[in-house]
Amino acid sequence: MNNEVLVVGSVAFDTIENANGSVQRVLGGAASYASVCASYFAKPAVVAVVGTDFTPEDRAPFIRRKVNLDGLQVKEGKTFHWGGSYDKDFNTAVTRFTDLNVFQNFNPVLNEEQKNAKAVFLANIDPELQLSVLNQVKHPQIVACDTMNYWISSKKDALMEVVKRIDIFFLNESEARQLTGEYNLIKAGRILLEKGVKYVVIKLGSNGAMLVSKKGMAQLPPYILEHVHDTTGAGDTFGGGFTGYLASLEEWNNLDAIKRAMMIGNVMASFTIESFSVDRLANLTQKDIDQRLQEYTSMLRF
Amino acid sequence: MNNEVLVVGSVAFDTIENANGSVQRVLGGAASYASVCASYFAKPAVVAVVGTDFTPEDRAPFIRRKVNLDGLQVKEGKTFHWGGSYDKDFNTAVTRFTDLNVFQNFNPVLNEEQKNAKAVFLANIDPELQLSVLNQVKHPQIVACDTMNYWISSKKDALMEVVKRIDIFFLNESEARQLTGEYNLIKAGRILLEKGVKYVVIKLGSNGAMLVSKKGMAQLPPYILEHVHDTTGAGDTFGGGFTGYLASLEEWNNLDAIKRAMMIGNVMASFTIESFSVDRLANLTQKDIDQRLQEYTSMLRF
Repeated sequence: MNNEVLVVGSVAFDTIENANGSVQRVLGGAASYASVCASYFAKPAVVAVVGTDFTPEDRAPFIRRKVNLDGLQVKEGKTFHWGGSYDKDFNTAVTRFTDLNVFQNFNPVLNEEQKNAKAVFLANIDPELQLSVLNQVKHPQIVACDTMNYWISSKKDALMEVVKRIDIFFLNESEARQLTGEYNLIKAGRILLEKGVKYVVIKLGSNGAMLVSKKGMAQLPPYILEHVHDTTGAGDTFGGGFTGYLASLEEWNNLDAIKRAMMIGNVMASFTIESFSVDRLANLTQKDIDQRLQEYTSMLRF
Repeated sequence: MNNEVLVVGSVAFDTIENANGSVQRVLGGAASYASVCASYFAKPAVVAVVGTDFTPEDRAPFIRRKVNLDGLQVKEGKTFHWGGSYDKDFNTAVTRFTDLNVFQNFNPVLNEEQKNAKAVFLANIDPELQLSVLNQVKHPQIVACDTMNYWISSKKDALMEVVKRIDIFFLNESEARQLTGEYNLIKAGRILLEKGVKYVVIKLGSNGAMLVSKKGMAQLPPYILEHVHDTTGAGDTFGGGFTGYLASLEEWNNLDAIKRAMMIGNVMASFTIESFSVDRLANLTQKDIDQRLQEYTSMLRF
């Protein structure tokens, strides 16, 4: 079955401090969360770069989840390392340091297999690199994209070029407002639809996610967790699960499939935030996922 | 059928400025929104006080909706008048003035019929007055209560006495955190459950509402509106619709009924925010409500 999801983005180390404790140099990066999550639904392949300090232990979660690492370049130097802390409000991270290291010169070059992936998830990286990937892939059926405030400020034109060429756009509330200049999220979403995106998915942090599309709108609460351990990677997990699930379908371009993908994204993100790094996310059973999806469905039944 | 809902709170004038325009001295007050909304599901009776400046035109929306005004005291003086403005973020109001006027000496005294109401909605007023009402009613099957940050700061002990004696507690995110000292909303809710409340309903503004109860938890997104005109009264409408709907049921004390009440509260609030004052809320047809409930149900179907 053709269900490869190409995930292009960062594989990194995180050093995190929050109300529950702290961790140093643990596996992080948008492409890590997204690909590990997508692995429960499809066949992810990562395109990213790490340094020579990236150990076999750091690779272990990918290996366990059978994520294809052919596209994980290893460059002389250190791996991208992000440090941040969270207040008791887990929704907002304060960056302590961003050591780009080898990631600074990341240049995604795809092999033939990667160029033929069914789905592409452009995780949060420089929109010029996202465009480069879009110029290399051949006929992806699904192109999803994430971004961040930094690129909206510094490379808006390139980002808007990306937007014209994608099916699904993930962004959070403030990014949607910043990019469109429109405060109302539905209006902001509509502006992006006009640019050519089919489905605008606005991530609402602890309030779930909202969909704006020409086929319909929806807002979905999160899967409710009593204990939040660390929210790093929740949005990347959401995007990876969303895209991975769609890649597993014969027909993904309809409202039912998209709403189901939102559910899956939310449920998968709920696992990510139960631990630091991918500790929980990379160790799920199908039963864990099915059970939580069932509880979630029942919560949503009115 | 015994389906009276006693609504005790403020009937007031509002002067409001927001991005959509401004209005002066229009009908407002928590009890106005709550009772007008409850009228679509049950038989509301208002207990409140107004001044001699409260005209027949001001009464018209209540009359149209057959809200019982026997308990609307008229005192020499002016009606409570609130002035406020909203930023483009409609979630937070900045108070310009609060002229309590005759409301300052409000003392709810119930007649026999009111004492026998099936349901009581204690809208946002001094918790000592809420206690006085609870001491007068005979055997209400449903007691719901709302509050605000002001009472949490100034009369927390009295409010906690109220909390012991109610079934349903409506409060918003910051109020839940302020009252319990707990940031996590589920944990905050659980603290209130320990005090004796059966259902803690945390209003999330533009993100809907969350339920914390021993029978289960739920989070419900709002009914999505493209154009928000004025959010004043949305929470009061939610509480009034919620309580009014429960009052219409034979058996209200179960999770399905409570979740349905949340839906109804959200849908009714969506009408309130489509206009200033109760202009839209007081002029709905059953078809308007049914249609929106159906759209909402379909949005929630995953």
